[in-house]
Amino acid sequence: MNRPLLAALTLAAAAFSLPAAAQFQKPEDAVKYRQSGMFVMANHFGRIGAMVQGRVPYDAAIATANAELVATLSKLPFAGFVEGTPGTAKGTAAPAIWTKRADFDAGAKKMQDEVAKLVAASKTNNLDNLKAAFGEVGKACKGCHDNFRNQ
Amino acid sequence: MNRPLLAALTLAAAAFSLPAAAQFQKPEDAVKYRQSGMFVMANHFGRIGAMVQGRVPYDAAIATANAELVATLSKLPFAGFVEGTPGTAKGTAAPAIWTKRADFDAGAKKMQDEVAKLVAASKTNNLDNLKAAFGEVGKACKGCHDNFRNQ
Repeated sequence: MNRPLLAALTLAAAAFSLPAAAQFQKPEDAVKYRQSGMFVMANHFGRIGAMVQGRVPYDAAIATANAELVATLSKLPFAGFVEGTPGTAKGTAAPAIWTKRADFDAGAKKMQDEVAKLVAASKTNNLDNLKAAFGEVGKACKGCHDNFRNQ
Repeated sequence: MNRPLLAALTLAAAAFSLPAAAQFQKPEDAVKYRQSGMFVMANHFGRIGAMVQGRVPYDAAIATANAELVATLSKLPFAGFVEGTPGTAKGTAAPAIWTKRADFDAGAKKMQDEVAKLVAASKTNNLDNLKAAFGEVGKACKGCHDNFRNQ
């Protein structure tokens, strides 16, 4: 196995190797952690959106910096979906997350995979590639939000 | 200039090259962004704290993964301290941030510098080194919180 791949796998394993519950002293901390991580991730995804939509000038280096941040952040929130922490208010975690956990996890992985493609697209220095990859990430976000977020 | 350094500087420049206000549609978004970023950062710093304090077994790879996350996250919240957004409640941003901005910015940089040392210490595979660097980061956090967070 090559060293960069090994390093990436080690990092990924480390990020998931503590039992989720052990990361949080209280269930409320887990909820706040996942909501905070999603909010910061959405902000940086939105900065790419501003370029894609022509609201700010296209800058490949800024797009890549933000895409790489989104990629890092995309790994974090899911540890916060610990058992027994669904919400009821609009925009909070729906009970379906825990009754259809495999589907939820597959949706999370789909998003992470599309974000990895967004990073690659951002490095092609081509706005059309960025737009296409941005759209696919957006679809992956929406797919999970439609099914697993209280409306 | 070597390539990794150049890449790091490009990334750092990109993270700060949009005017902060342009990143946020509303002042409340800036407040939520900085609070969310701080919360996620504190969680990952706390995972290292759990090792340092002997509450979970020492694992150098997990320490490094979390230290690197803290290093990435340590760059983010400060864009959210936009003009005109102090708080009044305990734990929120004190008005002094905007009246002594140079001191605040120096405090932020001190924390980021100590976090960089924490990453290096985590890679020595030596718990005593990790403990010492963890303590210095904690002091840097406290230094700013004492002066710039509403008590």
